[in-house]
Amino acid sequence: MTDDTELRAWAYLARVVEPPNAPLLSLCDELGPIETAAAIRARSVPHGHDEVLTATAARADTDLAAQDLDVAARIGARLVTRDDPEWPAWPLLALGQADTAFRGGEPLALWVRGTSRLDEVASTGIALIGSRAASRYGEQVTSTLAGGLVAENWAVVSGGAFGVDGAAHRAAVACGGQTMAVMACGIDRDYPAGHARLFDQIAESGLVVSEYPPGTTAAKHRFLTRNRLVAAMSKAVVVVEAGRRSGAANTAAWARKLGRPLGAVPGPVTSATSIGCHQLIAEGLAALIIDPQAVIALAAPDGSGDMERGPVRSTDALSPEAKRVHDAIPARGSVTIEEIAFSAGLETARVRSALAHMDVSGHVVNVDGAWRLA
Amino acid sequence: MTDDTELRAWAYLARVVEPPNAPLLSLCDELGPIETAAAIRARSVPHGHDEVLTATAARADTDLAAQDLDVAARIGARLVTRDDPEWPAWPLLALGQADTAFRGGEPLALWVRGTSRLDEVASTGIALIGSRAASRYGEQVTSTLAGGLVAENWAVVSGGAFGVDGAAHRAAVACGGQTMAVMACGIDRDYPAGHARLFDQIAESGLVVSEYPPGTTAAKHRFLTRNRLVAAMSKAVVVVEAGRRSGAANTAAWARKLGRPLGAVPGPVTSATSIGCHQLIAEGLAALIIDPQAVIALAAPDGSGDMERGPVRSTDALSPEAKRVHDAIPARGSVTIEEIAFSAGLETARVRSALAHMDVSGHVVNVDGAWRLA
Repeated sequence: MTDDTELRAWAYLARVVEPPNAPLLSLCDELGPIETAAAIRARSVPHGHDEVLTATAARADTDLAAQDLDVAARIGARLVTRDDPEWPAWPLLALGQADTAFRGGEPLALWVRGTSRLDEVASTGIALIGSRAASRYGEQVTSTLAGGLVAENWAVVSGGAFGVDGAAHRAAVACGGQTMAVMACGIDRDYPAGHARLFDQIAESGLVVSEYPPGTTAAKHRFLTRNRLVAAMSKAVVVVEAGRRSGAANTAAWARKLGRPLGAVPGPVTSATSIGCHQLIAEGLAALIIDPQAVIALAAPDGSGDMERGPVRSTDALSPEAKRVHDAIPARGSVTIEEIAFSAGLETARVRSALAHMDVSGHVVNVDGAWRLA
Repeated sequence: MTDDTELRAWAYLARVVEPPNAPLLSLCDELGPIETAAAIRARSVPHGHDEVLTATAARADTDLAAQDLDVAARIGARLVTRDDPEWPAWPLLALGQADTAFRGGEPLALWVRGTSRLDEVASTGIALIGSRAASRYGEQVTSTLAGGLVAENWAVVSGGAFGVDGAAHRAAVACGGQTMAVMACGIDRDYPAGHARLFDQIAESGLVVSEYPPGTTAAKHRFLTRNRLVAAMSKAVVVVEAGRRSGAANTAAWARKLGRPLGAVPGPVTSATSIGCHQLIAEGLAALIIDPQAVIALAAPDGSGDMERGPVRSTDALSPEAKRVHDAIPARGSVTIEEIAFSAGLETARVRSALAHMDVSGHVVNVDGAWRLA
């Protein structure tokens, strides 16, 4: 815990620029929050940090720190800073790298509503994002994915918007899981207003998070800036539905920039809200996602999740012919070599050879002369 | 045209083994059909061709050649042989290669019903295949694809079955296009019987084709053997819908083995009949297909089709950042650099640089200071 003076300094710094601001972060890392705040107020910073003066010129004389902390306290929120034990330093690290810093860099502090630890949620987060104008199909798939993820103790991260975001948060809450809404406005603003009650529910078991001080209104550029935090605080990002020009494309681009695995859910080719997903998959930018297991395989490819159950990836190491044989074995029950040969359209001898290979690799099991998936 | 004696010899050879049979093909290439037929009847073949005797042992004494040709003539069909000018030698060539011969090799002759030239149809064919138990969505997408393909003078190839096959043939016929049904039974059998009238319609403007002599009944192994001909006589193969164990997987495997580009249509992840398609796409075995233009781009990647209109592939050569900028420009109308920067989540300077690059590469056009896709 930081003491009051320090916390007020952080709150001052969190408002004195439009976040994120790399020069301020750099100065603060050097001097600490109290001296940094004092230097900005005095309009006198160490040599080489002049950019900070430019960036803070407009707001340096406005000190709402005490008021911001009061507003936050009244709605059960707190300011989590880079010095706090619950700061998600590791997830946010990628934001500080050269090629990402142009639009962001790491946040200085985050306003957080809810009782969960921010670092814990961020380290088990998986983002489900997509169109505000989601179809019924999109909302249904989102719910299925969110439910499946929280059942395996993953936290569902999203942006709190209508459509896919809302369905993701709602399903996570309904299933008793953790979810985190990363806002493009102050955590006290309930944007969109129709989600006010949902944000209350999220805060009960999960977190409502924002880089912006209380009272900040949502604005176009803030959605784009916010998107980087959604991607950063997730182990994987899945676009459930997205039209041709959906904002989800921006979060998807952040995921790729930050090295987060990206997935996309296919849908009817006749649906306008699946066009963006189909583009991502067709261009090889996103893995095709059909169920929660595929998402978990994406988030935890080392199997720390539940990769064994992810049919999409587990045969990656197999030869094309072995894959064909593997595909010919049903998910449940066992089949004979002849049945496999027929389904796969391969000669029995080749099927036998592929099965022997996959027996060794642990993909299939022989039970009384018949074969089933391991 | 072959003369009658020769044609009867071909008809005899087309029935004397269960096709395909590489040893018989090889002998026939050496001796010609008349001498080959005589050698088999006499049970005396040149040295090194003994396998032919084994393969023909059961049927050597049964000569239904004249009768088969009569039956064919009565239904407006003919026997097209390897010696005919309309033999699709080039499309079938891949079947003769070592790694494909184990299950097939080239056919000796094909029974063909309809007035179109077989080589012409086979050289403009695109296969649309999939589940017999297609969903309404699957049939709808099949019709859209088939209609779009015949409008661009491609022939729709399929297997004449219920479901996707039937929808493909029907839409091609309805749009006044060419279509070819490759059967797993004799061309006089109308299997399935419910498609008897459809086969009549196909034969009016397209072709009903089979490797099997008249009267042959459909059998499991014949579907698998037939599938290789569907793939071979197509420039690309598209799986529209396929369940986990669909026979379409076998045709898809043939497409890959024969070097035919393979596509698959995504669908709702909640649909059992899209599982096979999603697997093919997820494993990188098939390109994701959303419209006829994407199919044509697959079949004619050199642009001899209509590749310019295929949005899925045209940005392949661009850098990831340029792609992001490209994606941020709508399909119709023009936008400002600032609008693109917002959509893409990139700085204006970077967008300007990417646009300059894509202006040169011909991807975008500047119109009065705003940008649109070329």
